[in-house]
Amino acid sequence: MVPHLVTALAGPVNELEQRVLDSMPAIERWFRLEWMEHTPVFYSAVRVRNAGFKLASVETSLFPDGWNNLTTEMLPLAVQAAMAAIEKICPEARNLLLIPENRCESTSYLASVAQLARIFHRAGLNTRIGSIDPAIKKPTTLAWSGGESLLLEPVIRTRRRLGVKDFDPCTILLNNDLRAGAPGILEDIHEQYLLPPLHAGWAIRRRSRHAKCYEEVAKRLGKLLGVDPWLIYPLFDQWPGFSAGDEVGWTGLAGRIEALLLKIRRKYKEYGIKERPFVVLKADHASLATDLAVVREAKDIEGLRRELQAGKLASSEDGLCCDVLLQEGVLALERMNDAVAEPVVYTMDRHVVGGFYRVCTEAGAGEPGSRGAKFVPLAFEQGTHLPQFGMRPGVSGPNRFYMYGVVARLALLAASYELEATDPDAEAYE
Amino acid sequence: MVPHLVTALAGPVNELEQRVLDSMPAIERWFRLEWMEHTPVFYSAVRVRNAGFKLASVETSLFPDGWNNLTTEMLPLAVQAAMAAIEKICPEARNLLLIPENRCESTSYLASVAQLARIFHRAGLNTRIGSIDPAIKKPTTLAWSGGESLLLEPVIRTRRRLGVKDFDPCTILLNNDLRAGAPGILEDIHEQYLLPPLHAGWAIRRRSRHAKCYEEVAKRLGKLLGVDPWLIYPLFDQWPGFSAGDEVGWTGLAGRIEALLLKIRRKYKEYGIKERPFVVLKADHASLATDLAVVREAKDIEGLRRELQAGKLASSEDGLCCDVLLQEGVLALERMNDAVAEPVVYTMDRHVVGGFYRVCTEAGAGEPGSRGAKFVPLAFEQGTHLPQFGMRPGVSGPNRFYMYGVVARLALLAASYELEATDPDAEAYE
Repeated sequence: MVPHLVTALAGPVNELEQRVLDSMPAIERWFRLEWMEHTPVFYSAVRVRNAGFKLASVETSLFPDGWNNLTTEMLPLAVQAAMAAIEKICPEARNLLLIPENRCESTSYLASVAQLARIFHRAGLNTRIGSIDPAIKKPTTLAWSGGESLLLEPVIRTRRRLGVKDFDPCTILLNNDLRAGAPGILEDIHEQYLLPPLHAGWAIRRRSRHAKCYEEVAKRLGKLLGVDPWLIYPLFDQWPGFSAGDEVGWTGLAGRIEALLLKIRRKYKEYGIKERPFVVLKADHASLATDLAVVREAKDIEGLRRELQAGKLASSEDGLCCDVLLQEGVLALERMNDAVAEPVVYTMDRHVVGGFYRVCTEAGAGEPGSRGAKFVPLAFEQGTHLPQFGMRPGVSGPNRFYMYGVVARLALLAASYELEATDPDAEAYE
Repeated sequence: MVPHLVTALAGPVNELEQRVLDSMPAIERWFRLEWMEHTPVFYSAVRVRNAGFKLASVETSLFPDGWNNLTTEMLPLAVQAAMAAIEKICPEARNLLLIPENRCESTSYLASVAQLARIFHRAGLNTRIGSIDPAIKKPTTLAWSGGESLLLEPVIRTRRRLGVKDFDPCTILLNNDLRAGAPGILEDIHEQYLLPPLHAGWAIRRRSRHAKCYEEVAKRLGKLLGVDPWLIYPLFDQWPGFSAGDEVGWTGLAGRIEALLLKIRRKYKEYGIKERPFVVLKADHASLATDLAVVREAKDIEGLRRELQAGKLASSEDGLCCDVLLQEGVLALERMNDAVAEPVVYTMDRHVVGGFYRVCTEAGAGEPGSRGAKFVPLAFEQGTHLPQFGMRPGVSGPNRFYMYGVVARLALLAASYELEATDPDAEAYE
């Protein structure tokens, strides 16, 4: 159960909530028609930020962890969605192999993998967990508090197929973000379903590509709702191949930052928003650390320059150069007592199956740039993404969660567009 | 929440439960493959009886009422299943017209219709309620306790389409069992989706046809599980066109009853069951009253003969003749205190979305033949049809509910076979 959350009870997000509710049949129909043309990414976790005056997805994970934070009441929805997904992809499936991250160390990650395995087992699949970590050379049982444990088996690769000992899966579910690129052991698998596909790996994804796709679908949904799409997406820009000592590049980047801040200021003025606008600089390569820096005004740019020149912010592998995404910062205005609460929405196939709040346990964390902040999960009330009609905007948890679910599905749709654009086999369909 | 139920904790049903759990991936795969070949009936409510030594569906409603007895925790599942169903049938749908029974009088039926409308509204469809009752000549608001109300509008038929004023649906959902046959106003609708189809109406359905289809799928599932299929289906026989004064017909019917009783006695002996076997006589036409009589032994047959000759049991429209289904009686051994508790499982598309116990409020009711007995609903615990592995058979509510869900889906599959057999357009596909 979610205690009462302190949220801005007035302003554009409440109007947006009313529009979303009023347009619900149109929204659902729009998604249905989109899913006729585009295949939803198998599963996702979408971080959503409610700034009170706008609402947007700020990160879309295609290899979501945190499944253990879903409540038992949400599990039937996840299982039903998993059943429907399997039925569409591979109805004759018997066996599913789940491939987790290589370093399965934290208890919460282990609990997440165990929960995922449980979902697919209950959806009717024999489920085993296969590690591609070269350090796992024999079946290894990892146990954690509460008597739970997980059996990790080393994967076995034959010429055409991947499995574990005495287990030949027809579907391989990746929960490994392939940050360092797809290892050879996962390549050239054509007889088995690999979900999500290898090009969903972080080494291939670019934040700017996702931002562009998200902008595109947000604009179309905005038109459908008759609202300014800025209310549901963050403005952004990008700057390629920045390196520390490059003065010309620096001037260009600084100019872009100022231009983006100006755009945001105009929007804030249009809506009478008193907050200070800010821009978040992120590495464009999804496999690099998320936030490089937060810029609020000209003097921050100068500080950033010094840090960049000192090499402090370079985060590419060679420490020298990286493509940069400049993204409008979206405040998280929802609070649980004094802590920031950021909703995370989980999807499976095209369905929202649950979610929870990441509640910041450190003062000031949850503000942009708070890398390494500690979060505790706080599950949504179960069933709360079903709208309640006839409620005043801003007072109904379910209506707010339904709106979050719409924004999350927008990010899911953007991810589908994104994967279509990077699909190495795409030309085969043309 | 369901209080502790008194159930037989030993015997064949517990072995069956263990088999069902152990075979879960095979069962789910089997259903997935069946649904590739056969279209699930849009929705259903399946009455299941757990006799302790066997478990079987005893009635399958294709126009289910009682949706109001599902808990709010079950609604998200129903909504998600409705979304998936609509997406498959008619993704471009905007409007849905729900057609309830003509005499919408009881509060519980009104609440059920309101719940159904809510499910489809939340699944993203504009939903209106259109009455085909000739007595409804103008929009009529029916209100009941708790401030709830329902707007019933008279349907408007044009040459090709059905709707209500200023509302043109693309999908028409029947919650009217068409007991008296499909009225002309529903015929020749080819541009809109009519769900379920007209031949699912009670005037067309025959209990013997459903029993045959159920036997067929139960035998196949029994083989898959490696169990005697008798554990999951009732034996049956049929007798056509019986009329009261017909001595030859009477002798034939009596002979069939005795033969069926003998078969059941043999099965009881095989399993060491001490209960008294019985046969239930039902009208084969689904639109006629369910149970005609219960027969336990030879002297009951004699009593039945006298009643038949006195015309007491004739229930066909002309009072003279009806086809008879002879069905093995299945005891309901589950008890809530002293009352009989009979599970009813709800499905939407291919998914089990919830269920509840009909708990008898009258002593002795729930026994076969207890026409007119009063029932109160008692919802299953939410989420309880997801199995819990590693539990001893017979002690886990969720495992029992999962097994009930399997039997209910067996009845759903049988209904799909049944509707294929009676589809008037079937030859079009051959």
